[in-house]
Amino acid sequence: MDRRSFLTKAAVGGTAAAAATTLAAPLYAQGNRTLTLVTTWPRGFAGVHDAAQRCADIITGMTDGQLTVDLKAAGELVGAFEVFDAVTSGQADMYHGADYYFVGQHPGYAYFTGVPMGMVSQELANWYYHGGGQELHDELGQIFGLKSFLAGNTGAQCGGWFRQEIKGPEDFNGLKFRMPGLGGEALGKLGASVQNLPGGEIYQALASGALDGTEWIGPWADEKAGFQEITKFYYTAGFHEPTAGLSLAMNREVFDSLTPGQQKIYEIACGEAHQWNLAQFLANNSAALARLQAAGVKTLTFPDSVWDAFGKAANEVLTDPTRMSDELYKKIYDSYMASMRASSAWDKLSDGAYTAQRDRVLG
Amino acid sequence: MDRRSFLTKAAVGGTAAAAATTLAAPLYAQGNRTLTLVTTWPRGFAGVHDAAQRCADIITGMTDGQLTVDLKAAGELVGAFEVFDAVTSGQADMYHGADYYFVGQHPGYAYFTGVPMGMVSQELANWYYHGGGQELHDELGQIFGLKSFLAGNTGAQCGGWFRQEIKGPEDFNGLKFRMPGLGGEALGKLGASVQNLPGGEIYQALASGALDGTEWIGPWADEKAGFQEITKFYYTAGFHEPTAGLSLAMNREVFDSLTPGQQKIYEIACGEAHQWNLAQFLANNSAALARLQAAGVKTLTFPDSVWDAFGKAANEVLTDPTRMSDELYKKIYDSYMASMRASSAWDKLSDGAYTAQRDRVLG
Repeated sequence: MDRRSFLTKAAVGGTAAAAATTLAAPLYAQGNRTLTLVTTWPRGFAGVHDAAQRCADIITGMTDGQLTVDLKAAGELVGAFEVFDAVTSGQADMYHGADYYFVGQHPGYAYFTGVPMGMVSQELANWYYHGGGQELHDELGQIFGLKSFLAGNTGAQCGGWFRQEIKGPEDFNGLKFRMPGLGGEALGKLGASVQNLPGGEIYQALASGALDGTEWIGPWADEKAGFQEITKFYYTAGFHEPTAGLSLAMNREVFDSLTPGQQKIYEIACGEAHQWNLAQFLANNSAALARLQAAGVKTLTFPDSVWDAFGKAANEVLTDPTRMSDELYKKIYDSYMASMRASSAWDKLSDGAYTAQRDRVLG
Repeated sequence: MDRRSFLTKAAVGGTAAAAATTLAAPLYAQGNRTLTLVTTWPRGFAGVHDAAQRCADIITGMTDGQLTVDLKAAGELVGAFEVFDAVTSGQADMYHGADYYFVGQHPGYAYFTGVPMGMVSQELANWYYHGGGQELHDELGQIFGLKSFLAGNTGAQCGGWFRQEIKGPEDFNGLKFRMPGLGGEALGKLGASVQNLPGGEIYQALASGALDGTEWIGPWADEKAGFQEITKFYYTAGFHEPTAGLSLAMNREVFDSLTPGQQKIYEIACGEAHQWNLAQFLANNSAALARLQAAGVKTLTFPDSVWDAFGKAANEVLTDPTRMSDELYKKIYDSYMASMRASSAWDKLSDGAYTAQRDRVLG
């Protein structure tokens, strides 16, 4: 695995919103065509690069050669956090990434990856496909000239890697910690010095001491990234990304130039990749965790006092008055929270009640 | 909703395994073509018909008219339980159904819907897409000349509808109850008189007294089927189908005659429909349950003594020596159980630990 830093300057946050263009797009429908896909992931990064590659492969495969998707990993055409601008400007046709990297463009994007104390992965799918989430994602895309769909998911992310145990919320004070999105902003309210680095830069920052700790994904992806070589305390459940949806976003003029069948292939490929990728992470985490523990990593859970502080900070961030004054942000927040309550209530009676009995009966 | 019985004689169990043919298939690739899809669901049945229709629509949509899928619901071309033979014989091109209806053809099919005390839905996805499940489904398909993929999921099914409360396992003795698959066989070990009826026949059987009770799916689908008009005791979590995958199966000669792109479209459509349909059920159950309760339905959970009896009976059925002597059955069982243990262990540390904290913190 190459741990070089693929990006020297994070572009996120300082980028002005690109206006959607209204130019008529030519129809390329009849000929063969190559679409360029840029990603926020270094080539080969476990799970996340795989999701992008899956999208590329199945779109190419389903079109019998009409469309060929050419994947350029982070740094190969543009830097990880430059992909949003590359696609809105037409430099690339599509990006694959975590949309919460782009909360600087619009804070509503956070909900299509994950928000602190928010939905778990099945709840996100329920909302996205049957609770209005996809339509809200599309409303965001219309602002920026993008056609986006969920197209990957890491599952609930771990609390992360620390050099020392966390015994209370005060232990986050002054801690230099990598955490993107609104989760990172919430952690900042506990006094942490929060940094938003793309995946390809984390290892070096942690090794150099620029970071005291980091979250990335979960046991399988984190093991491949090698953080256990530097830090030994690993917190499993985290508060910041109880799911992490990944998105594929296409320049809307490019999307409009596809045939109806190609547009449908793009949409269905994204949906399939979302499920395939989530199952990939969840199928691999258990064995990876056992290997990490065998290698001397100590796995821990945050104490209740930390969860209480996380919960308070998360609520402040999600309901920040400036954000809530944005009509689309509030619409997304309200829709998301109502759907989460409904999904959660049913899950307790269903999978929750069943697995508790299965554990009790089968031991 | 039409509650007529669409099938007068269940064909399941008495059907000999159709041998796979080895005839060369013609290539239809260049022209437009209609594929006939038969299903085990009455037209319009909530969720299950929707999954089949989704498959038909997106395959048709993705091919820009090259393939048109013509859906024939249960009874429109063949009866619900006749779809397996219709597709293996070439009378129809595809079926959509729950593969545990076909345990008479091979008991291994049970694992691709759900087995008692087995996997929940996310565990099934982990196994199917990344734990060898799909490859084992394909091994079964090769026996019968089918190319099958998961293509829908109801989520964990409810314990079902009863005329009286269930206070202990002895209350199942002599109860005339509808439950398919290996779950039904396990219920039989508690003394129930188990019947396997397709969805379209249940309401009439319950209304006439031919059944004392029934399971079908969950609040949303059950409400639409109308069982609350007849019975008032509804058990939420059940033991028999903690997930219920639905399958799309294509005649293998037909599959082999498709272009590589069309074959990929078929595969990816199935995967997308699996996720889309699971989210559909889970997004709708909570509100449906509230409506049922408002209409006077009493919701209950089985006591521990019943779960203990279910657990014992389920294990006897799954490890039945005759079944385990079949090499492919044992291979499926071993693969499934190993994957379930790994998925379950991680889920406890991840979604399980997180949602417990979310409930504690947010109330």
